[in-house]
Amino acid sequence: MNRVFADLPVTVFEAMSQLARDNNAINLGQGFPDDPGPEDIRRAAADAVLNGYNQYPSMMGIPELRQAIATHYGHWHGVNLDPMTEVMVTSGATEALASAILSVVSPGDEVIVFQPVYDSYLPIIRQAGGIPRLVRLEPPHWRVTEEALREVFNHKTKAIVFNNPLNPAAVVYPREDLELLARFCQEYDAVAICDEVWEHVTFDGLGHIPLISIEGMRERTIKIGSAGKIFSLTGWKVGFVCAAPPLLRVAAKVHQFLAFTTAPNLQVAVAYGLGKCDDYFLAMRKDLARSRDRLAQGLASIGFPVIKSQGTYFLTVDLAPLGLNETDEAFCKRIVKDYKVAAIPVSAFYEEEPVTSVVRFCFAKNDQTLDTALERLSVAV
Amino acid sequence: MNRVFADLPVTVFEAMSQLARDNNAINLGQGFPDDPGPEDIRRAAADAVLNGYNQYPSMMGIPELRQAIATHYGHWHGVNLDPMTEVMVTSGATEALASAILSVVSPGDEVIVFQPVYDSYLPIIRQAGGIPRLVRLEPPHWRVTEEALREVFNHKTKAIVFNNPLNPAAVVYPREDLELLARFCQEYDAVAICDEVWEHVTFDGLGHIPLISIEGMRERTIKIGSAGKIFSLTGWKVGFVCAAPPLLRVAAKVHQFLAFTTAPNLQVAVAYGLGKCDDYFLAMRKDLARSRDRLAQGLASIGFPVIKSQGTYFLTVDLAPLGLNETDEAFCKRIVKDYKVAAIPVSAFYEEEPVTSVVRFCFAKNDQTLDTALERLSVAV
Ligand SMILES: CSCCC(=O)C(=O)O
Ligand SMILES: CSCCC(=O)C(=O)O
Repeated sequence: MNRVFADLPVTVFEAMSQLARDNNAINLGQGFPDDPGPEDIRRAAADAVLNGYNQYPSMMGIPELRQAIATHYGHWHGVNLDPMTEVMVTSGATEALASAILSVVSPGDEVIVFQPVYDSYLPIIRQAGGIPRLVRLEPPHWRVTEEALREVFNHKTKAIVFNNPLNPAAVVYPREDLELLARFCQEYDAVAICDEVWEHVTFDGLGHIPLISIEGMRERTIKIGSAGKIFSLTGWKVGFVCAAPPLLRVAAKVHQFLAFTTAPNLQVAVAYGLGKCDDYFLAMRKDLARSRDRLAQGLASIGFPVIKSQGTYFLTVDLAPLGLNETDEAFCKRIVKDYKVAAIPVSAFYEEEPVTSVVRFCFAKNDQTLDTALERLSVAV
Repeated sequence: MNRVFADLPVTVFEAMSQLARDNNAINLGQGFPDDPGPEDIRRAAADAVLNGYNQYPSMMGIPELRQAIATHYGHWHGVNLDPMTEVMVTSGATEALASAILSVVSPGDEVIVFQPVYDSYLPIIRQAGGIPRLVRLEPPHWRVTEEALREVFNHKTKAIVFNNPLNPAAVVYPREDLELLARFCQEYDAVAICDEVWEHVTFDGLGHIPLISIEGMRERTIKIGSAGKIFSLTGWKVGFVCAAPPLLRVAAKVHQFLAFTTAPNLQVAVAYGLGKCDDYFLAMRKDLARSRDRLAQGLASIGFPVIKSQGTYFLTVDLAPLGLNETDEAFCKRIVKDYKVAAIPVSAFYEEEPVTSVVRFCFAKNDQTLDTALERLSVAV
């Protein structure tokens, strides 16, 4: 069997969700909301299933969705994309990442990734024959520094894979860090594969800045988005890849043999959703910020040192000051069993030198779920 | 960029569908029906979108679909599968194939494939570092022979990838050929990756025999199926992988980083569909056989030498006896332009020594579509 995959563990999100089910626990681990998602978007999908097209759509995505993606990013970020040559629809952001990485990376290429790292990046880089170079980010600010980049960039650097807003750290990177990355990518002629699935889930008026919009990055960035995250419909698995034609052309060749195409009924509904007026997206953020505050305040009042969340469905707490004498992993295993609340240990996002005192909670849940979880956790510290 | 993919053409199915659109032609190329698909199954999906679960399902597929797949294959083929450890749901058969191949094949492994070969197999095998060994099958019988297998099997053989019923040849392999393959796989300790997406689409009382049901193959076969093909809903992209736990376990590790999971609403509907009574599947076959006969008779009456189709949505014609002095590819390019009918040249399924006189037509269309296509083609010979 293929050694790249044979010895991997089950992804921590799936493993924790399974533990949650086994223990009949409230699942604040894997990132998904517990509400049913926007009714009008779901109705658009149901209509398309009943009255629309259910056969193979174009491999690149249905034209109206590609147009909607281009229009959406033009409107929100001033990024102008040609829907026919610079936009591709994928079966979720995971497939988008795999297509992007496999298209860019050849054996021997070095690829810079940042820890905490989403768990699909490294296996796919290795399958491509790439050599990961890890940058270690640290709580509570998780900032990217020039010094760290100097250490890993070199003439073998082919690409970086960068997640912003950053899961699990809940950081929305400021322009300064993005410009630093852009400078290095240009200096070393590297492609930036940008996992920006959380782009719409930002709080407190913080706007997400796509790396592709930074000067000099338009031609060397592969931008990845996710309808599941944008519309709180994580199961739909409709992702986007946006890139200049020479990059997208090759990513499409991988896509055509990894998944080929994506359910057209869901594509129709996502196209509809992306056209919603700004208020929709702003209300979604406000709603989620309210949930974030509810969980953050609750956790703080119990005594957990909460690290501020700027975006994503997640907030983190730092166990270090509590002097619990247990790792994040042990803590998570304990609370799911003893208090019936599942969370994710942030050490699972490190391949080496893990940060072992930080735990991630998903707050994209209704008030009652959060309150019950808080009640249960109140006796855990 | 990654050379495995960078220089590949766009898949012939997409390219031909594009040519069909550009020429406003009837598309008898890419394999998809032109009816909307079973209403009750679509209704089940719409209900799930509206009232059901739209968040991440289990990475392996929702339990009711895994159970339905196991029950279905038990009922139809007497293959007993444990739904929890031997069944996985994927984002279509293409993703299933990629997950299976990448899980089994390591650099230097030889993998036996049969020409005509579906166009995703070779790039994925090469991405895995595998070395394809090609067996050339020939019209009109496309049979697998002991002599051909002797030439390619050796101690480096890691796997075979075998498509049955065979697209584009429309052959349903008899037990004899399957037993021959089974004997070689056992002699050389090879895994059989079986693309059986057309398993339900067989005609004239010919039953498909899954390779996994042949003696000695239960533990070394990865069986791939497709709800899109079974239910004439090709856009849904819900596939299945069935294999003994040691094989499935690794395929799941690839799947979790290629696509992770598949829309739960479509999974619910497929679970419902798989439970339909036998009559549904038999009626579907009968309907398609009627369409096959309509197109076959029409083509024959125009003067095309039609090769009998035993299964799939396709039939082939052999241009050789016509003395047209053009390849299948030239013929297809000519008829889409001049007669507004798209078909697929079978040479596109060969990497070397192509058969260049055979053209594939998709007959999974309503009568009027077929009749109009025939009318147009009547002047083409
Ligand atoms: C693909 S499962 C993981 C979902 C997610 O974004 C998270 O929980 O981090
Ligand atoms: C994935 S597109 C090809 C569909 C198909 O089965 C065919 O036309 O051969």
